Amino acid sequence: MSEIRKHYFLDEYCIIATERGKRPSDFVSKKIEKPSVSNCVFCAGNEDKTPPSTAVYKKGDILKDTEEELVKDWEVRCIPNLYPAVSTRSVKPVLSGWEVQEGFGFHEVIVESPTHGRTLSSFSDDEIELLMKVYRDRVHYYHFKENIQYVSLFKNWGERAGASLEHIHSQLIALPILPPVLKREQDAIHAADGCPYCNMIEKERKSERMIRENNDFVAIAPYFSKSPFEVWILPKHHVNHLINCTAEMLRSFGEMIRFVLFRYEEILDFPSYNYMFYGIFDDDSYHLNVRCHPILSTPAGFEKNTDIYINTATPEDTAMYLKCE
Amino acid sequence: MSEIRKHYFLDEYCIIATERGKRPSDFVSKKIEKPSVSNCVFCAGNEDKTPPSTAVYKKGDILKDTEEELVKDWEVRCIPNLYPAVSTRSVKPVLSGWEVQEGFGFHEVIVESPTHGRTLSSFSDDEIELLMKVYRDRVHYYHFKENIQYVSLFKNWGERAGASLEHIHSQLIALPILPPVLKREQDAIHAADGCPYCNMIEKERKSERMIRENNDFVAIAPYFSKSPFEVWILPKHHVNHLINCTAEMLRSFGEMIRFVLFRYEEILDFPSYNYMFYGIFDDDSYHLNVRCHPILSTPAGFEKNTDIYINTATPEDTAMYLKCE
Repeated sequence: MSEIRKHYFLDEYCIIATERGKRPSDFVSKKIEKPSVSNCVFCAGNEDKTPPSTAVYKKGDILKDTEEELVKDWEVRCIPNLYPAVSTRSVKPVLSGWEVQEGFGFHEVIVESPTHGRTLSSFSDDEIELLMKVYRDRVHYYHFKENIQYVSLFKNWGERAGASLEHIHSQLIALPILPPVLKREQDAIHAADGCPYCNMIEKERKSERMIRENNDFVAIAPYFSKSPFEVWILPKHHVNHLINCTAEMLRSFGEMIRFVLFRYEEILDFPSYNYMFYGIFDDDSYHLNVRCHPILSTPAGFEKNTDIYINTATPEDTAMYLKCE
Repeated sequence: MSEIRKHYFLDEYCIIATERGKRPSDFVSKKIEKPSVSNCVFCAGNEDKTPPSTAVYKKGDILKDTEEELVKDWEVRCIPNLYPAVSTRSVKPVLSGWEVQEGFGFHEVIVESPTHGRTLSSFSDDEIELLMKVYRDRVHYYHFKENIQYVSLFKNWGERAGASLEHIHSQLIALPILPPVLKREQDAIHAADGCPYCNMIEKERKSERMIRENNDFVAIAPYFSKSPFEVWILPKHHVNHLINCTAEMLRSFGEMIRFVLFRYEEILDFPSYNYMFYGIFDDDSYHLNVRCHPILSTPAGFEKNTDIYINTATPEDTAMYLKCE
């Protein structure tokens, strides 16, 4: 049996198709042998194998590599991506007859731990809080650079999620445009009666799709879920952007992300996953959220053709499995 | 260096990022060992291992399995998908407080050859022409079923493209809605001055992105390419939908699809791929097209966050490699 579900407030659809009646173990894929660790450029001690850092977090200080000295014994290290999708070295494109702009922007890697093999689920309260502060700092930093309209912050973990290196890291890409998909969402929010996310949270908190709440955040398996075991994390009280989170909120935010990842590992045996931050800084009507997608299926021709995602796990089951009873 | 390219006529962007200067061989991935063939349910002789066919093509006739007899010695065999994304057996969803409709529709598999291990690139002229006729027939058949608004026709080949079975097949999903992504495209076409696809073909034919033309079709590496080695195949003269292709056009269409797949195999060593048919049957202003995506990269957090695709192969290089000199 299947359902065609419409997004809470956007003109988007997904198909919840449970014909195969899958259990979490049906989603677990064979693990691929891990590559050798010895040459990892993100490991402590290999600071000379990456471009110089843009920011290094160490015992409460924010430092930076210099030509004379690379910062050692760091906790979190931010470096330019060696193969940037956009960069400040971009050049004017050749006239082609079609609309184009130079690939201007910033592409940074946030190395989340000096130690290889760690996962966020094992972070201490202080470690996860520091990481959230780094996220906020770096997004803030790039947001106020000239000609930057949007800063995309996301994490790819595992090969199936597009991570080319195993050592935990997140990435940040600062763009000269607001992505149209966010513009459309913004338009829909402006057209709505009140914040549709606040409205959604109010209803979903009482539903079987509610997973967990802590001081400031909720984790929900959204009614409109494009991929199996999708989870949205949202602040309970309206905040538009990560930059506007207080230190206390960040602690609560990090704790919730860690909880969701921990449950993914327990229930789905360390799946590859992506999580992405959504926010529009110069628009108070937007409602900050993070979307977590473990990679358990392969979007194929149908999804590309229609932009409608077939999801073989119901959000209701997802919440049931991820909740701690 | 990279460029942010806008779609020909939609509010969509992609990033062409060639920092790594990849050659086709850099995209070739390690082949995964093929599973055993012996139990393939799509092979000739195993007709009893699938649901009864909805249509079987055999020596110019269109037949159908009956309770008494399963058609043998077929050329192309259409069967219901055993795990349908949508179906006529769907039931009214439970009231949830959110917008939903039953997952009504049809999900069919088109088994393209009785023989395991064949690929479309090895099809004879007659075989590929027959397949295109089957495509047209089946899309036509479902388009006129009650409450069907769109028929998605696509092919997933290889594990990375989401194919769960190795034996060549395409799929068709008939939906009770026009997918919003196509509605947006339709709106943009209506707002344009003349057919933007005709305009695009006229300009791209003279460009370095032109790959090949035959009697009725062109193959282009589009200026706006979301994925490496993306190719669009379009009729040179305006036709809105596969259903409206003449027999002669179908021959030319199939020949062009076969050519592109053959070149993928040669240049990229049998990559997984998807191809998808785009058309709006009840709107003459739409321009039929097929988009071919070999799977050479993994869309990750950034793509999910922004719907902007980073493509590490330029369309200009793609055309150069795929062209036969």
